[in-house]
Amino acid sequence: MTQTSLTIWTNAKLPDEAARMLAENIAPHRLIYAAETNPLNLASSQVDANLEQADIAFGQPNAEQAMRLDKLQWIHLTTAGYTAYDRDDFKAALRARGARLTNSSAVYDEPCAQHVLAMMMAFARRLPESLQTQLGDRAWPWAQRRRESFLLNGQTALIFGFGAIAIRLCELLAPFEMNLIGVRRGVKGDEPVKIITDEQIAEFLPQADHIINILPGNDSTTRYFDADKFQRMKPGALFYNLGRGSTVDQEALLAALESGRLAAAYLDVMTPEPLPPDHPLWSAPNCFITPHSAGGQNGEMRDLVMRFLENLRRFTGGEELRNRIV
Amino acid sequence: MTQTSLTIWTNAKLPDEAARMLAENIAPHRLIYAAETNPLNLASSQVDANLEQADIAFGQPNAEQAMRLDKLQWIHLTTAGYTAYDRDDFKAALRARGARLTNSSAVYDEPCAQHVLAMMMAFARRLPESLQTQLGDRAWPWAQRRRESFLLNGQTALIFGFGAIAIRLCELLAPFEMNLIGVRRGVKGDEPVKIITDEQIAEFLPQADHIINILPGNDSTTRYFDADKFQRMKPGALFYNLGRGSTVDQEALLAALESGRLAAAYLDVMTPEPLPPDHPLWSAPNCFITPHSAGGQNGEMRDLVMRFLENLRRFTGGEELRNRIV
Repeated sequence: MTQTSLTIWTNAKLPDEAARMLAENIAPHRLIYAAETNPLNLASSQVDANLEQADIAFGQPNAEQAMRLDKLQWIHLTTAGYTAYDRDDFKAALRARGARLTNSSAVYDEPCAQHVLAMMMAFARRLPESLQTQLGDRAWPWAQRRRESFLLNGQTALIFGFGAIAIRLCELLAPFEMNLIGVRRGVKGDEPVKIITDEQIAEFLPQADHIINILPGNDSTTRYFDADKFQRMKPGALFYNLGRGSTVDQEALLAALESGRLAAAYLDVMTPEPLPPDHPLWSAPNCFITPHSAGGQNGEMRDLVMRFLENLRRFTGGEELRNRIV
Repeated sequence: MTQTSLTIWTNAKLPDEAARMLAENIAPHRLIYAAETNPLNLASSQVDANLEQADIAFGQPNAEQAMRLDKLQWIHLTTAGYTAYDRDDFKAALRARGARLTNSSAVYDEPCAQHVLAMMMAFARRLPESLQTQLGDRAWPWAQRRRESFLLNGQTALIFGFGAIAIRLCELLAPFEMNLIGVRRGVKGDEPVKIITDEQIAEFLPQADHIINILPGNDSTTRYFDADKFQRMKPGALFYNLGRGSTVDQEALLAALESGRLAAAYLDVMTPEPLPPDHPLWSAPNCFITPHSAGGQNGEMRDLVMRFLENLRRFTGGEELRNRIV
């Protein structure tokens, strides 16, 4: 079978091993590079002349430029998030010319789901408190630590943003026999757990021991978790954010932590990132922070390239692309 | 059905709610108390005159006294460990009069298994490092943190001491599709994962990413993890101890951490406990400590009493006791 040679543009700032893996497996296609590589997690603010030659873009092209280029038939983003491309005009322009947009969410589903579980288990077993003791007075508060530990079994978790990460999280949590409830705009019917819609949230928020936020960032999710929602939560609830910082009213979150309404929060995303050293979230009571590392793992860059190459094989073979957005 | 009224002695130092639950559910039997209550986790060093009246002991009786008392037909310990009672003369004395010894291991299986998972997930997602950053310079080392995170999927865990905790741990780890291998003296054949015996350890130690120690403390396990075993471990392996501190040569463990042979250790038990503030394990590289809290949870005392009452129902009904040792 003779394959057409396509021109694949990339501005992905890949480490050497992953860049080599991409270059070595791209034949019969031609790989061309942006004048400047771009962080993997940020849509380029710059127009790049080389993009005009491309059939396919792998990375984070400039959205305004990409929507204008009729030759460009497929954009594969190096992120799970796609806020910069989540615009009606952009999507309409792609659809009008039959172009496609995919993302790399599959790379991040597994580590993100494991990250949530890690945070939940850390709370349940009081690992942050024990580490603080170790870094502090090295006391031995064993009776208190045992009394304050808890089992996940039978507890209720409400998961906002019920996509691939949530589905995998439910698999990881299955052995605990928790009461898992997903929240999503449209109930598809094939979800592995009970799904509720936005209208039922006021009823379910007060019942949840764990509030897990995996919402994407877009106009409809901005400050979704506001003072009203925090006030409806069960006293002593635990809040997790792996979605986007923009989905949370951080003043309201701070107030909920300071009042003790929330027992604790574990945040992987916030506004802004990096969080400045003097930001009050760093020292809010029982607020624990990871630096947007939930989706990462030592094989991340290899996976990123491999999943693009897999989708490229599907693209040239006329198969349905994985992780398609448009 | 008329039930015999038995005399049940206890020296368990229970919190009010659990003590009340015990007293309220003991009828038609009679509850008598030791002159001094005893910590739940420590065999009494004192002879107690009231024990002479008892048919059943619930707590931590003095072993020498308990083995002499012909009237005493059943001892239910408030711990999972039973080192003070794990003596040939004690067991022989009980067997000679048809008396039984049970422990409370079922109370501790679930939290212990969850504690191991919490430790593994904390390592995988680099939670201790992120907390240290938060308590330190509040930098944002996101790229490094992501690169150093890893997935449990496909990794190998070697579990020493393959009892109820390990079986539950394997259930919790099932969704990760790890390579789980148990080590136990006698292979029973009904284990849910591959089991190897002591003779095969030299072959398997170098393959394991996770070495999980849940060995009980007794003569045959003292300093089981010695310099030779640490040297056979895969460079960069992770070591966990939830068994007993006595099962580890701590000098050898320190050397393995200092040389980098072990990437990290998470210890819930050590020698001595409490660990003195100036002990080198507190500050050994990548050594994390919880204060013997693995078996604890906020419902622990309630579970402890409920499981004793369940065994009491079995005892009076002539059924097989749960968690029987003798």
